[in-house]
Amino acid sequence: MRVAELPTPALVVNGAAFDRNLATMAAARPGAALRPHVKAHKSTALAARQAALGHRTFTCATPREALGMAAAGLGEDLLVANEVLDPARLAALAGAVRAGARITVAVDSDATVDAAAAAGLVEVLVDVDIGLPRCGCAPGDAGRLADRARRAGLSVRGVMGYEGHLMMVLDRAEQRDRVAAAVEVLLAAHADVGGDVVSSGGTGTYDLHDRVTEVQAGSYALMDTHYGQLGLPFEAALRVVATVVSVRPRWAVCDAGLKTFGMDHGNPAMDDGFGSLRFCSDEHATFVPGPHPLRPGDRVLLRPAHVDPTIAYHERLWVADGPDLDATVVEAWPVDLRGW
Amino acid sequence: MRVAELPTPALVVNGAAFDRNLATMAAARPGAALRPHVKAHKSTALAARQAALGHRTFTCATPREALGMAAAGLGEDLLVANEVLDPARLAALAGAVRAGARITVAVDSDATVDAAAAAGLVEVLVDVDIGLPRCGCAPGDAGRLADRARRAGLSVRGVMGYEGHLMMVLDRAEQRDRVAAAVEVLLAAHADVGGDVVSSGGTGTYDLHDRVTEVQAGSYALMDTHYGQLGLPFEAALRVVATVVSVRPRWAVCDAGLKTFGMDHGNPAMDDGFGSLRFCSDEHATFVPGPHPLRPGDRVLLRPAHVDPTIAYHERLWVADGPDLDATVVEAWPVDLRGW
Repeated sequence: MRVAELPTPALVVNGAAFDRNLATMAAARPGAALRPHVKAHKSTALAARQAALGHRTFTCATPREALGMAAAGLGEDLLVANEVLDPARLAALAGAVRAGARITVAVDSDATVDAAAAAGLVEVLVDVDIGLPRCGCAPGDAGRLADRARRAGLSVRGVMGYEGHLMMVLDRAEQRDRVAAAVEVLLAAHADVGGDVVSSGGTGTYDLHDRVTEVQAGSYALMDTHYGQLGLPFEAALRVVATVVSVRPRWAVCDAGLKTFGMDHGNPAMDDGFGSLRFCSDEHATFVPGPHPLRPGDRVLLRPAHVDPTIAYHERLWVADGPDLDATVVEAWPVDLRGW
Repeated sequence: MRVAELPTPALVVNGAAFDRNLATMAAARPGAALRPHVKAHKSTALAARQAALGHRTFTCATPREALGMAAAGLGEDLLVANEVLDPARLAALAGAVRAGARITVAVDSDATVDAAAAAGLVEVLVDVDIGLPRCGCAPGDAGRLADRARRAGLSVRGVMGYEGHLMMVLDRAEQRDRVAAAVEVLLAAHADVGGDVVSSGGTGTYDLHDRVTEVQAGSYALMDTHYGQLGLPFEAALRVVATVVSVRPRWAVCDAGLKTFGMDHGNPAMDDGFGSLRFCSDEHATFVPGPHPLRPGDRVLLRPAHVDPTIAYHERLWVADGPDLDATVVEAWPVDLRGW
């Protein structure tokens, strides 16, 4: 089947670009120096490709992601880089650990430490605030939390901190300085906590981390127009193929809209040559076509602005052997880690 | 189970407010004067409640919605108010018609007429552009398309047009005038097309349509903060319950983010008393808590900005007997019409 023959709207991975993205990252951060974040793609089939390149440790954002990775045989070393308080989900994670997976959960408070211990989990990582106002304990509280965890019988593997506020700093020198300062905070907390792991970073800062043990990047594998602004050595490997369903003299409409694309970073972009997007509705994008006339039934390609919430709407990723509508579809990867 | 005991993030319907919304609409537009749009909720269980109040005709945006409605026994009169060109999906719709459902599809071009006929469908409606730059033929082309459809053996039930650009006109007198002008365009096309159906409208204009035979509103059942600006007699009946996973002196974080909420209309709102939302990440919302101190594990409620793409992320709607965290969960409605 060609990309142009897929039922639409559909997510399409340019397999060659995807392979290059994975190879570029594996060269920069080989093996356990990268802990790929599965939240970006929510697909165990895609994660298996990352594992085949030597990354056998993974980052998850939800219990369901971790349980799905473990069930898929990818549970050698999973980090739930998020605070979980649901006793049932923590118990499910502990069950997966007893069944042979290694699952470490992040903690940033007495409550999260106590919940992990109560559920029978065995390993935690102290999540430290290094500047993004989100999860993570105050840096000065990290050592105390580690002590509490150890007293509760938990093994403390180290620290993590996510400098999400620095991903999109466009001035590279400024970004480098600010990441270094954030890592200083993390390392100071690590001195109080101990353990082997210092985990940080993301796609926007993957090459600025010579002092941590691992980076949690996820978007690098498929990319989006938002990260595309940074000039990173990763290619736009993800597109949505859509069908033109209506054509008027001054606009055309395709069948991909607000339930196809995560919209927090704004509209998707029409791929080169297909025109200029005007607005999205629930099941449509209205666009001004490019130089080539379009007819109903023609296909167009679009690039998502934000990969993570885009993929979360879809049941599968189709993999093609090239970037165009004429490329051959060679594989389907279920998006099997959706939900919580 | 109480709302506060649900696994989070979760969609919660205030059943009493939902019932009032349905009763208000059923009084204003009884029976077939309303063709409820299922794209807003994608749930056959919710649609069954609308049917129980007398609305037995439904609007769908995708083939999967129509097929799911037919399979659920709600296929008495389904309109796919969208242009479909996929032969396989059109054939599936035709199969459902042969199995006893009544399914009418919108057409706005030679290609959509021909595709419907080729697939073995029997009934179409001519979709007319009445001012929103999206689907719909030029008004002057409607009669010709109807003729083409009839020559192809299709029964033409009438016309539809969606004045989506007028939903959020806040000045009611201006909105009334502009809707009337749009309906004039639709009625002129109807004079050329014939048939019994003149279908238009949405939640924002449901009470401005005395000249059409039916209105396609969907959001009225659950509402969102966007439609909430209009002062309509429908209540915010949909909330997301989330768990507080991290608390710092100046902010707190709950476990509902960009994969929980459709973001095209902006951030969700913290429900009354829970504080003020700052920003969403993939799986988190960072907010400034209200007057009551929060601890990890506490629950908060949020109101989505846009109901349709929010529900499309979720597997089910939980129904509660009140608006608060203490309300009892009385039912679960699968979101069984997702995808295409």
